[in-house]
Amino acid sequence: MTVAIAQHIAPTFDFPVVFTRKAFDPANSVLADILAQAGAGPRKVGVVCDAGLVAADPGLPGRVTAYAAAHGDVMALVEAPLILPGGEAAKADFAVVQAVWELTFRGKLCRQSFVLAIGGGAFLDAAGFGAATAHRGVRLIRMPTTVLAQNDAGVGVKNGINYFGRKNYIGAFAPPYAVVSDHALLATLPRRDVLAGLAEAVKVALVRDPLFFARLVELAPRLAAGDDEALFEANVRCAEAHLQHIAGGGDPFELGSARPLDFGHWAAHALEEATRGELRHGEAVAVGIALDTLYSCRTGLLSRAEAEQALSLLDALGLAVWHPALADLDMAAAIEAFREHLGGRLHLSMLTGIGQRIEVHAVDAPQLEAARAELAGRQ
Amino acid sequence: MTVAIAQHIAPTFDFPVVFTRKAFDPANSVLADILAQAGAGPRKVGVVCDAGLVAADPGLPGRVTAYAAAHGDVMALVEAPLILPGGEAAKADFAVVQAVWELTFRGKLCRQSFVLAIGGGAFLDAAGFGAATAHRGVRLIRMPTTVLAQNDAGVGVKNGINYFGRKNYIGAFAPPYAVVSDHALLATLPRRDVLAGLAEAVKVALVRDPLFFARLVELAPRLAAGDDEALFEANVRCAEAHLQHIAGGGDPFELGSARPLDFGHWAAHALEEATRGELRHGEAVAVGIALDTLYSCRTGLLSRAEAEQALSLLDALGLAVWHPALADLDMAAAIEAFREHLGGRLHLSMLTGIGQRIEVHAVDAPQLEAARAELAGRQ
Repeated sequence: MTVAIAQHIAPTFDFPVVFTRKAFDPANSVLADILAQAGAGPRKVGVVCDAGLVAADPGLPGRVTAYAAAHGDVMALVEAPLILPGGEAAKADFAVVQAVWELTFRGKLCRQSFVLAIGGGAFLDAAGFGAATAHRGVRLIRMPTTVLAQNDAGVGVKNGINYFGRKNYIGAFAPPYAVVSDHALLATLPRRDVLAGLAEAVKVALVRDPLFFARLVELAPRLAAGDDEALFEANVRCAEAHLQHIAGGGDPFELGSARPLDFGHWAAHALEEATRGELRHGEAVAVGIALDTLYSCRTGLLSRAEAEQALSLLDALGLAVWHPALADLDMAAAIEAFREHLGGRLHLSMLTGIGQRIEVHAVDAPQLEAARAELAGRQ
Repeated sequence: MTVAIAQHIAPTFDFPVVFTRKAFDPANSVLADILAQAGAGPRKVGVVCDAGLVAADPGLPGRVTAYAAAHGDVMALVEAPLILPGGEAAKADFAVVQAVWELTFRGKLCRQSFVLAIGGGAFLDAAGFGAATAHRGVRLIRMPTTVLAQNDAGVGVKNGINYFGRKNYIGAFAPPYAVVSDHALLATLPRRDVLAGLAEAVKVALVRDPLFFARLVELAPRLAAGDDEALFEANVRCAEAHLQHIAGGGDPFELGSARPLDFGHWAAHALEEATRGELRHGEAVAVGIALDTLYSCRTGLLSRAEAEQALSLLDALGLAVWHPALADLDMAAAIEAFREHLGGRLHLSMLTGIGQRIEVHAVDAPQLEAARAELAGRQ
């Protein structure tokens, strides 16, 4: 006799994504309010900071400590902020993850306590995996400190580190408790990283938000010139589009057919690997977007006029649409690696219009080759 | 200016929990049907087996391989079943987790591929954490092979390993893709482990299911005598009660105030630690149940008659309600450790009737002491 019971589990996760300025000014109540709403009395908080950020902004750990002291009614640091490797080094091994585990253990953080992680996207990925797996999940407040992390990487529901030489091989789906983006922290960011981060804004606009695309075209001269208000607006709208994509797709943990917003990313991943980190993720994404935009055009999915609009926006933002490494790329192998990374059938996003995407499951190799040649010729 | 976006994420997880017999008899279609419904063509499957189980049933890996060969249209083993340490050793370090990561890598398993984990609850916890974190989650089919795993540990949404000397310090919430319980595999289980596993049935009946309690009282003589049909029924009903608790509580990932069904578990955890594994988990739970039942009675929550019914059922199932280690237990420290394990405020389940529990947030130490003394005196 066989007995089958159908189990249905429906957890819900609600979290705020807040964009503010000077989050650690004691007069800024964003963080204190989030902690206050989590329960009575001071909440235990362990803080981890991206070493790259602290190098650029050495006063940060002190400001965090002062903020906690000023808000001692809701916030109790378990120890001084911990400075840990940032950038891709954070994801290269288990060191950051282990440090977060040890922090939760030393500080006796429980599932109702907090880890506050302050740093770039890679740092948040690694620290987030540590927080998500200590006690099966300590509450994580992410404070993304790069354009890329504020508008994309830091607002989602994934974490992870690299392993076996593969990006994000080990990780989990784990929504944060809150995301607090401090726009003022972007002031120390090199201009190159600001621009690279905007590639994700172009991506999300191209695949799902024609109004945002039009607005980015308007904002582009100000963004390229380093205008602060323009950047704030672009970041908020980009994050919003990513959040809507995750929440609205019906499959936020990508258990079935849901796909991340990864237009242009198959080539981007391969270019990042080929250049061994010389290219920023966003820079690689810009090249990938340009390539797949031209491919969409050459295969008749996208009009030539729209393809030119997309490439023009990248140009206007100062994002290069070509890199020499693309010339040498084994594109068939890169697509196969991407298929393997996603699992199962190949899914590539292509454009059918500004703000409209379609999924394709095979690639026309000669047209892809022609798109690459066309991109090379535009230099 | 501060901008706040409210994100709402609502993933759903549906999985079958199937009780069958001889799951690897090629004529048994349960496993093949689950794989067939996952998509077209053979699904890639990596298999990990609990070494303790294989020692008791050396033919198992061969039966798995033969089953896959017989169902080659839906099931493609990526390699021969891997034999890994079972029991508490599986959770003592990262060895099993690491082995699962390596299996997924060697076998090029993707998020749509499967890990089939066959073993006891501890083994499933460790292998499940590996599967849940490779690619942020490869599909996991759990095949629990002990009474405890089939009726409780193997049907939930948690995994984990011990770390820093703490039970389940590292882990995640990750629903399985399916659970297939093979009743025939219980035939090799020592009688002691069968009985110990029934402690969880008594627990779930006492805290939420008076009809199941009544049925267990009826079944007890047959269960104690090793009747196979009675055990099948008890396992199915116990699993059902656990599944309903997880699904029905509105907080399956225990983000807020949801509590696991852990009646009697504060003492059980401490006794397991104190006896360093000499006591089975279920045996420790039986003592913990008895202690908290008498405490519930002595504090006026539960009638004496109902307390005696509960203790009688444990007796009838051959479960001892006393262990010498309880005499030496620092109960205040054990309760504090349990509070820390849960996080935040102390929550202890106590009984107000057969099938009815209440949460208490403090303990009357003299009454607890008296309950222990009463238990000692019953020996």
